[in-house]
Amino acid sequence: MKILVVNAGSSSLKYQLIDMDGEKELAKGLVERIGIEGSRLKHSAGEKSTVVEEAIPDHEAAAQLMLKILQDPEYGVIRSTDEIGAVGHRVLHGGNKFTASMLVNADVKAAIRECFPLGPLHNPANLMGIEACEKVMKGTPQVAVFDTAFHQTMPPKAYMYGVPKMYEEKLHVRRYGFHGTSHRYVSRWVCEFLGISPIGKKIIICHLGNGSSLSAVMDGKCQDTSMGLTPLEGLLMGTRCGSCDPAVVQFMANNPLKEDGTPLGHPISVDEVLNIMNKKSGLLGISGKSSDCRDIDDLAAAGDENAILAQEMLVYGIKKYIGSYAAAMGGVDIICFTAGIGENNDALRAKVIEGLEFMGAELDPEKNKGRGEKVISKDGSKVTVCVIPTNEEIMIARDTLDLVTTGKVRDH
Amino acid sequence: MKILVVNAGSSSLKYQLIDMDGEKELAKGLVERIGIEGSRLKHSAGEKSTVVEEAIPDHEAAAQLMLKILQDPEYGVIRSTDEIGAVGHRVLHGGNKFTASMLVNADVKAAIRECFPLGPLHNPANLMGIEACEKVMKGTPQVAVFDTAFHQTMPPKAYMYGVPKMYEEKLHVRRYGFHGTSHRYVSRWVCEFLGISPIGKKIIICHLGNGSSLSAVMDGKCQDTSMGLTPLEGLLMGTRCGSCDPAVVQFMANNPLKEDGTPLGHPISVDEVLNIMNKKSGLLGISGKSSDCRDIDDLAAAGDENAILAQEMLVYGIKKYIGSYAAAMGGVDIICFTAGIGENNDALRAKVIEGLEFMGAELDPEKNKGRGEKVISKDGSKVTVCVIPTNEEIMIARDTLDLVTTGKVRDH
Repeated sequence: MKILVVNAGSSSLKYQLIDMDGEKELAKGLVERIGIEGSRLKHSAGEKSTVVEEAIPDHEAAAQLMLKILQDPEYGVIRSTDEIGAVGHRVLHGGNKFTASMLVNADVKAAIRECFPLGPLHNPANLMGIEACEKVMKGTPQVAVFDTAFHQTMPPKAYMYGVPKMYEEKLHVRRYGFHGTSHRYVSRWVCEFLGISPIGKKIIICHLGNGSSLSAVMDGKCQDTSMGLTPLEGLLMGTRCGSCDPAVVQFMANNPLKEDGTPLGHPISVDEVLNIMNKKSGLLGISGKSSDCRDIDDLAAAGDENAILAQEMLVYGIKKYIGSYAAAMGGVDIICFTAGIGENNDALRAKVIEGLEFMGAELDPEKNKGRGEKVISKDGSKVTVCVIPTNEEIMIARDTLDLVTTGKVRDH
Repeated sequence: MKILVVNAGSSSLKYQLIDMDGEKELAKGLVERIGIEGSRLKHSAGEKSTVVEEAIPDHEAAAQLMLKILQDPEYGVIRSTDEIGAVGHRVLHGGNKFTASMLVNADVKAAIRECFPLGPLHNPANLMGIEACEKVMKGTPQVAVFDTAFHQTMPPKAYMYGVPKMYEEKLHVRRYGFHGTSHRYVSRWVCEFLGISPIGKKIIICHLGNGSSLSAVMDGKCQDTSMGLTPLEGLLMGTRCGSCDPAVVQFMANNPLKEDGTPLGHPISVDEVLNIMNKKSGLLGISGKSSDCRDIDDLAAAGDENAILAQEMLVYGIKKYIGSYAAAMGGVDIICFTAGIGENNDALRAKVIEGLEFMGAELDPEKNKGRGEKVISKDGSKVTVCVIPTNEEIMIARDTLDLVTTGKVRDH
């Protein structure tokens, strides 16, 4: 069966068509600037690629264009949309309702809508993507795969915040965690790769990309994760500040600065502070120059002090989370790096593991060099350190296939 | 020399008179409800104690009453205020100006005033205490001992937040840490107690009281601490929530609840959210019943589920900080418990250390029982776990004595 994987943002729609016989990617693409001047589609299938520039007023038009190019005589890979057996959608926030992927029906859509306050930037867009696909592919099953689902096994001591308990009881204010599909994929695949069972194993996954999160996985189940109610908490990220004293929000609201560092002269709203914390902070906010870890590395190599500080803060934050999750699980057997930074930045991996010998992690500098799926710890290191490229799309496609064929998601 | 140690709050003044020959406490007391109806002084000297109930309109009157009772024929311990060689004041926030205690002069007072925005609840009160003592003890040297000073050795990677860097450069928004006098006292004293040098040692101090913080101390210098810009960050505390997703502040501001858990119906200010986070959260907010760890233990023992959760959250948080600081320092040699909960709650200590065998910490259940200065780890445990009663007053008195006699603070 061919499964279409869709990740809809507020003005974008990313897709990938996967042939589940052999889990082979047939085509992928990205519709950008939906509803904005300059909208376009970038599409590729194998060696071929094309860009279509035309007015794309809404997500339904984007979905139509996606289907058109997938059936294009030159760039397409299918003759009819009937060949698409099902569509799997990435949905950011499943709240505390969903512990696994779900076939989309009216109840599931209502629940995604109920989570709008928890994921105000993503959930409305994710639902638009689902509804657009429902319209242009009538009768094709749609599946929702939640970024939060894998983390729903966290115990209350890990997911509760210290605010009055009624905020969790009435409004579901708690830690949810994100990147769950990646954490699930990597924590499963690393065990297959090493030829071991996840049962009895304590694994720490470092998903380090533009957004970054760590998770502590024991017996295949998530025990803790660094992102929280929203994807802002935890590590320093591309443009997100990560964890800080909640009083920093208050201080910045009451004493805001202009872009040039001079006082604005009047308080700003908490929403405005959170906007700064989400979009103008992190590597960008510390370096003042770029949110991209590769740029930060280049700047640091050239001696830029703020870039060096940003690097140090990121490494230090990862190191501290690894220590805290090892303590939380009573030790660690496997530490796994994944996603853009985790898979590609061997220098960062080396700095993170440096000094963790006391907990049994010893890196092999030679094995650590370069990319690809591999063990990077020394032979005999008590903790096995690995690099595992993530593949959220394949995980979404597998769940989708499971649900449309058996009605149940397997533990893969 | 006799040193008076003063800790002034917004409506209180706590004092202790110490004879530095032998570091003996001569008398101590607390003036409560300054400027509020029902003001009174509680005073004790050795076996004798008394309560004075009278109108105490301001801090100057409180200081006068304190001096009067210290010279009282029945409850006093001195004949004249001339016997007081100097006064040492606890000051919450020294910002990034003070790395050690200071003899109070106009510049120091101006700097304490400059830190009002960083310590809005405490610094104005601390300064009132200093100025009151200056007025009623003209010519007696006053010394300011900052709760933040010990933590000023933290490297930038530990004290920087991920918000735009100009907030640190222009407004000094960064991690400061508090309880510094306690962390300094305990990290020094545990080495004397064990007969070792702090040089080359990695120590984690768990100061657990109504307010709680941990610190990572290497070579006698603070490397990291869990409180931040304000004393709100870090662990779950009596009434403070500790760390959470900064977006929780936004969510609570936009969706506030009444005390009964029903929606308030309109947004509240960030200051109001922070008030809830500081005063109605923590053990109190989770249990719904008490901010006192002893009450929580009693409730938990009786099966109260929310109290059990509060206990678990506290233990889990301490455990994770220990792990993260061990990772930050590349291991740990000594873990030290102090302050009300740390010194008295052996059950909590046992739960915290349980599962930390992987990093070399093994508790001896027999040695752990009860209170007092002691080693509580097993013979042969790689990590030495200790209980060290804190004594901030003696540390303030020692710094004060040093400054008035030699002009310099020793590393004691």
